[in-house]
Amino acid sequence: MIIVTKPDATEEQIQHVVDRIKEWGLKAEVSRGAQRVVIGVIGQEDVIREKPIAAMAGVESVTPVLKPYKLVAHEFRQTQSLVKVGDVTVGNSEVVIMSGPCSVENREQITSIARDVKQAGARILRGGAFKPRTSPYTFQGLGIDGLKMLAEAREATGLPVITEIMDTKDLEVIEKYADCLQVGARNMQNFSLLKEVGRSKLPVMLKRGMSATVKDLLMSAEYILSEGNFNVMLCERGIRTFETYTRNTLDLNAVPVLKKETHLPVVVDPTHGIGLREHIPQMALAAVAAGADALMIEVHNNPELAKSDGEQALMPDEFAELVARVRAVAQAVGRGA
Amino acid sequence: MIIVTKPDATEEQIQHVVDRIKEWGLKAEVSRGAQRVVIGVIGQEDVIREKPIAAMAGVESVTPVLKPYKLVAHEFRQTQSLVKVGDVTVGNSEVVIMSGPCSVENREQITSIARDVKQAGARILRGGAFKPRTSPYTFQGLGIDGLKMLAEAREATGLPVITEIMDTKDLEVIEKYADCLQVGARNMQNFSLLKEVGRSKLPVMLKRGMSATVKDLLMSAEYILSEGNFNVMLCERGIRTFETYTRNTLDLNAVPVLKKETHLPVVVDPTHGIGLREHIPQMALAAVAAGADALMIEVHNNPELAKSDGEQALMPDEFAELVARVRAVAQAVGRGA
Amino acid sequence: MIIVTKPDATEEQIQHVVDRIKEWGLKAEVSRGAQRVVIGVIGQEDVIREKPIAAMAGVESVTPVLKPYKLVAHEFRQTQSLVKVGDVTVGNSEVVIMSGPCSVENREQITSIARDVKQAGARILRGGAFKPRTSPYTFQGLGIDGLKMLAEAREATGLPVITEIMDTKDLEVIEKYADCLQVGARNMQNFSLLKEVGRSKLPVMLKRGMSATVKDLLMSAEYILSEGNFNVMLCERGIRTFETYTRNTLDLNAVPVLKKETHLPVVVDPTHGIGLREHIPQMALAAVAAGADALMIEVHNNPELAKSDGEQALMPDEFAELVARVRAVAQAVGRGA
Amino acid sequence: MIIVTKPDATEEQIQHVVDRIKEWGLKAEVSRGAQRVVIGVIGQEDVIREKPIAAMAGVESVTPVLKPYKLVAHEFRQTQSLVKVGDVTVGNSEVVIMSGPCSVENREQITSIARDVKQAGARILRGGAFKPRTSPYTFQGLGIDGLKMLAEAREATGLPVITEIMDTKDLEVIEKYADCLQVGARNMQNFSLLKEVGRSKLPVMLKRGMSATVKDLLMSAEYILSEGNFNVMLCERGIRTFETYTRNTLDLNAVPVLKKETHLPVVVDPTHGIGLREHIPQMALAAVAAGADALMIEVHNNPELAKSDGEQALMPDEFAELVARVRAVAQAVGRGA
Repeated sequence: MIIVTKPDATEEQIQHVVDRIKEWGLKAEVSRGAQRVVIGVIGQEDVIREKPIAAMAGVESVTPVLKPYKLVAHEFRQTQSLVKVGDVTVGNSEVVIMSGPCSVENREQITSIARDVKQAGARILRGGAFKPRTSPYTFQGLGIDGLKMLAEAREATGLPVITEIMDTKDLEVIEKYADCLQVGARNMQNFSLLKEVGRSKLPVMLKRGMSATVKDLLMSAEYILSEGNFNVMLCERGIRTFETYTRNTLDLNAVPVLKKETHLPVVVDPTHGIGLREHIPQMALAAVAAGADALMIEVHNNPELAKSDGEQALMPDEFAELVARVRAVAQAVGRGA
Repeated sequence: MIIVTKPDATEEQIQHVVDRIKEWGLKAEVSRGAQRVVIGVIGQEDVIREKPIAAMAGVESVTPVLKPYKLVAHEFRQTQSLVKVGDVTVGNSEVVIMSGPCSVENREQITSIARDVKQAGARILRGGAFKPRTSPYTFQGLGIDGLKMLAEAREATGLPVITEIMDTKDLEVIEKYADCLQVGARNMQNFSLLKEVGRSKLPVMLKRGMSATVKDLLMSAEYILSEGNFNVMLCERGIRTFETYTRNTLDLNAVPVLKKETHLPVVVDPTHGIGLREHIPQMALAAVAAGADALMIEVHNNPELAKSDGEQALMPDEFAELVARVRAVAQAVGRGA
Repeated sequence: MIIVTKPDATEEQIQHVVDRIKEWGLKAEVSRGAQRVVIGVIGQEDVIREKPIAAMAGVESVTPVLKPYKLVAHEFRQTQSLVKVGDVTVGNSEVVIMSGPCSVENREQITSIARDVKQAGARILRGGAFKPRTSPYTFQGLGIDGLKMLAEAREATGLPVITEIMDTKDLEVIEKYADCLQVGARNMQNFSLLKEVGRSKLPVMLKRGMSATVKDLLMSAEYILSEGNFNVMLCERGIRTFETYTRNTLDLNAVPVLKKETHLPVVVDPTHGIGLREHIPQMALAAVAAGADALMIEVHNNPELAKSDGEQALMPDEFAELVARVRAVAQAVGRGA
Repeated sequence: MIIVTKPDATEEQIQHVVDRIKEWGLKAEVSRGAQRVVIGVIGQEDVIREKPIAAMAGVESVTPVLKPYKLVAHEFRQTQSLVKVGDVTVGNSEVVIMSGPCSVENREQITSIARDVKQAGARILRGGAFKPRTSPYTFQGLGIDGLKMLAEAREATGLPVITEIMDTKDLEVIEKYADCLQVGARNMQNFSLLKEVGRSKLPVMLKRGMSATVKDLLMSAEYILSEGNFNVMLCERGIRTFETYTRNTLDLNAVPVLKKETHLPVVVDPTHGIGLREHIPQMALAAVAAGADALMIEVHNNPELAKSDGEQALMPDEFAELVARVRAVAQAVGRGA
C-alpha cells in the first residue's frame, strides 16, 4: 500500500497516518519529495486494505500494491486448474464445447438438440430452466420441470448438464439434476448466491457481469473459492459499451489477461457476447485463438419458434460446421478440440 | 413493431413473415420502398415482442414501437406516485433526505449518527446490516444484530429505517425491523429478489445497476409492481463509464428522463455516485436542481474508523451545512426541502 | 513515481531499474516487502514520465505521483482565472450564458436569434460557420459567409461572438470576425489545432471529447497554455456511455472535479449534453447548482426548419423562461446570473 | 424512415408531419395503432435524414430505415476492395503484416528495425514522424526529418511506408516520402483532414476513434471516398470502456461486422488495442481468426530506450515468432499470411 500526501499536508497529519499504520501492526516507510510525501506500508496488506485511509486529513491518494484476490491467483496455485463437469475435464489442452438451447422448452426439444450437439462434437449440454429475463412478461423458464427434462436429455446422450441458478433457495433441487451450476452475468455480484454455490459440491461456471472488470470477476470467484469450492470456471460473455451494433461487446482481451492472473479455466460465450447469429462463428474462432479453454454456444433446431434468444441461436448444421473450424484453429494454436 | 426486410429478401420470405404475424392474431401493413419492405405490426405488441422475428430469413431489423414497461409508465398512471416510508412521504414537493452510515457498526454508533442526522434535517435513517462487498475478506455487516440496532435507533429518534436486502431468504426478518427495503445496484437484475420484494408489504427503493440503462431500471421496477407492490422508488447512484477520477459517474440525466417516463419517485445518491467526499455537496445540489424527489447521503461521525466507505461519508456538521444549501436550491426550483 | 516489481523479479533486475533512475539524475528509495519491492522515485518526475519503465524486466506496475499537467493546475495558479470574451468576463460570480443557433443559416436568421437571446439575457452569441458533421452529405456550414453574418449580428446586438474552428488553416479568417474560438469535442485531441489556437490572441473554449477523461481534457488545455494562450475555458458537453435514451451523458461530476483541479473557468453545454429539448432546462439548472461558470445553450426561432440539430434547440420564449430559472438557482448557490 | 407519434398527438400535428413529407417530394404511409400512429416515409431517405422531424410537435421517435453510408457499403460494391500500398495488396487472401516502431527516432534505429521486421515477414513498414501525444511535454516526433529517414529505410529494405498525418498542411510533404497515409484514432472525426486525404493519390488507413461506433467509422470513411479516394483501409485499434487492466479494449467484434457492412479491407492493431506487450500475440492471432485482412504490430529493438510506447513494443525475435504463429492460424481459417 502506497500513500501519497497532499502538497499542503501538515507534519501532524503525516505523523497521524504513520501512527495509525503502526497501531495496525504494520511498518511505514516515509519518502519525502519536493512537493509530496510518499508513505510505503509494509506488511499484511489485507489488514490495511479495509481501513478508510483516504478519509484521513492530508491524504491525496492510496494505491494498493498487492492484489486483492488470493485463492484464484497464480501466486496461490501455479498450475492450471482442471474442472471436471461429469466426466469431462475443462482446462486441459482440449477446447471443450458446451452447447444447447437458451431455454429448455419441452422434452422433445431438449433431447433432440442434445443429440444434435453431441453428434457435432459438443461435450457438455447447456439449457436454462430458471431464466433471468429483463421483462416479467416474457417466458421465465420451466423451473423444476425443465431440470427434469435436462436430466432425461443427459440420460439419452451421456452429456453432462450445466444450468443456471438464480436463487439460493433453488440450490438443492438443481444439485439433484445438474452436473454444473452457472451463475449468470446479472448475478455476478449477488454475494449471497456466490457464498451458497461456494458450499456446493458441484462445479460452478461464473459469468462476467456486463460492467464488471476482470478484477471484479476475480473477486467474485474468490467468494466461491473462499467457501471451499475450487471447481470454478470463469466465462467471458460480453461487456456493455457504447457500441449498439452488437448486443454486447465480447471482450476477448479478458482471455489472455485471465489466463495470466488466475489458474481457473476460461470459457467464452460468443453467442451472448456478440448476439448476432451470423457473426458468432468468427468470434468463436477468435476466442480459441486468444486462448480460451472452452466455448459455450447456443443451438436451437427451430430458432424461429424459440421461446428466448432465437435470433442468436445457431442451427445444428451451422454448429457442426463451426465445430470443425474450431478444431482447425485449436490445432493451429497447439491444442486439441 | 416495425420490421424492415433485407434488400435481397424474397417475396416468399416476406410473405412468411406476414403469415406468422397474422397467425399471432395481429395485423400487418406492408409498405414497399425502393430497396426494402417495411412491415408495420398493429395490435397487442406484447404478443409479438417475445417472438424471435429477427431470426426469420430475410429480416434485417425489428424496432418496437411501444414501450416494454406498463405499470411503471405515466401512460398507466398520470399522477405522481407518493411512497410512504413510515410516516414520511416521498414524491411530494418536499425534497426528502435519507441519511446515516454505510454500515451499522454498533449500537452507540448508529444511534448517535441517527440523532445527528435527524437534528440536521434528515427524515429517514439508512444503515446497512447485510453488506454487499466486492471482497469476501472485508466486513460483511452485522446481519440480524444490525437490524435490531437500527430498530433501536428508530425508537430513539422516530426516524423510519431503510436497509438493504440481498437474499430472498432474509425478507421475513428484515420486514420485522425495517420500514423500507433497499435493493442494491448489484442486485438490480436479481429477478428472484425483485419478485420477492414485489410480494412484500414494505416500500422498496430500487437502485440502478452500474451498467443499467434507464429502460433496464424501469423493467426491473416493473417486476416489483407486477407482483403487486406499487410502493417503489427509483434511485440513481452512478453508472460505470471510462472516467476513473470519480468512483462512478452520477448520471443526473436520468432524473428528468425518469420523471418523464414514470410516476414513481426518483431518489439520487450522490455519495456512491461520485464517491469523493469533497464533491458530494455540489452533486447533491445539482440533483435537486435536476428534479430529484429525495436524496440519500452517507454520514459518519468518525469516517477514519468507519468499517466501510469512510472516505465518502460526510461528517455530521458538513451534512448539516449541506442540508441548508439543499433547502435553498429546492426553494429556487419551486419545492420545499 | 512509484515502481512495484514482480514477485519473481531478480536482484539484477531491481538493481538495473535503480541504476537507470540514477542515470536520469533522480533518487531511488527501495522498500522491501514480503513479496514485492517498491521503488520510490524522488525528483523531477517529468524526466521519468516519458521513460518506458514498464518495459523493463521485473517491473509489475508504475504509478505516477505528480500530475502530468502544470500550467492548468491550481498548483500553478491558486486564483480563479477570468477569461474575457469581448467585454464579457467568464469566471466571475456571474453565471454567463452563451446562446444562439447550432449553425448560421442566413443573415436574417442569425441576427433575429441574436436579438432574441440578447433580450432574454444571453451575454455571448454562438453560431457555427464551419460545422463538423458525421455525414459528408449533410449541411457543412456557410464558411466565411457565415463568419461575416456573425459579425453583422454582433454589430446589431453588441454580443461578442464564439464560433468553432476545425482546421489550422482557418485561424486567420476566424480571428478576423470572431471574439472567441471554440475547439469542438471531435477535435479535442487534434494537437496541431491545439498548438495553433495556443498561438492566437483570441480566447478559446475547449470542449471535452466524447471519451475524454477529465485528465485528458486538462492535458489538451495544457497544450494551449503551453503555447502562451492562457485565456482558455473548458466545456463539459456530454460523454459517450452505454445509455442510448439520451444523445450523450452530460457528466456534471466533471464540474466540481474541474473546479478543484484547475483555475480555468468551466462551461456546461446541456444542449449537446443530453440532446433532448424537453430535458435541457433541468440539466442547465443542475449545471449551475454543480458550480458551472457559464452555460452554452442552443436556441432557434424555427427548430422545425433548422439545418442542423433542430430537435435540441430551445425556442426563444423557452430560453427566456429558462434564463429566469437559472438566475434563481444561481442566487441560491451564492452567485449572480 | 419511420416516424412514431406520441399517444397524445393531435390529428393536426399528424397531418402537419404528413404535409411536410409530401412537400419534400416523398410519400407518407400512415398506419394507425391503438395508441400511436406510425408514418412510413418512402423515397430518397437522404432528403429527409437531415430534417429535424423529431423537433415537430406530436412526434415521439424517428427511426431511419436505410443506412447513412453509401460508397463504403457492400450495396455499392459487392466485391472486396483491394488496396495497394506500394506493391503490396491488402484485401487478398494473404494476411498482410505492417510493422515498425511507434516513432522514428534516428536513421540507424528505423533502418535496423525495418530490416528486422522485413526478415521476419512484415510487408509494410510503419513509423511515426508526426506524433499525437497527450502531453505537450513529451516527444512530438522528428517531423520532416523523420519522413526522410522512413524513405531511406524503404530504400534499404524495399518495404513501402505508412505514416501518420495530423494536419492538412502536412499532406504535401508526407505524399513526397510515404506510400500510405494513416489517420489516427484522435483525428477520426477531424473532417477537414478526412476531406484533404480524400483528395490525395495515396491510400489511407483510417483508425477507429476510441469512442466511435462502427457506424461512425464508416461515416468517416465515407468522407474520404466521397472526395474520390477509394483506397481506404479501416483499422480497429481498441475502444475506451470501463476496463482499466488493459490500455484499451480491442473490439474484435468490429472485424466480422465491418466485413459484412463494407467492401473496404480491415486492419487490426493489437499493439494499441490491448497495450500490454505480453498479451499482444494472442490478440493478433484472435484478430486473424476473426477475419482481419491485415495486422499492424509495433516492434522496437530496444523498448527500454524507446521514445514512445516502449512498454508495448515487441522485440524483433518475439515478432518473428509471432509471424509464424499468425501464418498457422491464417491457414487454419483458409487464408495465407
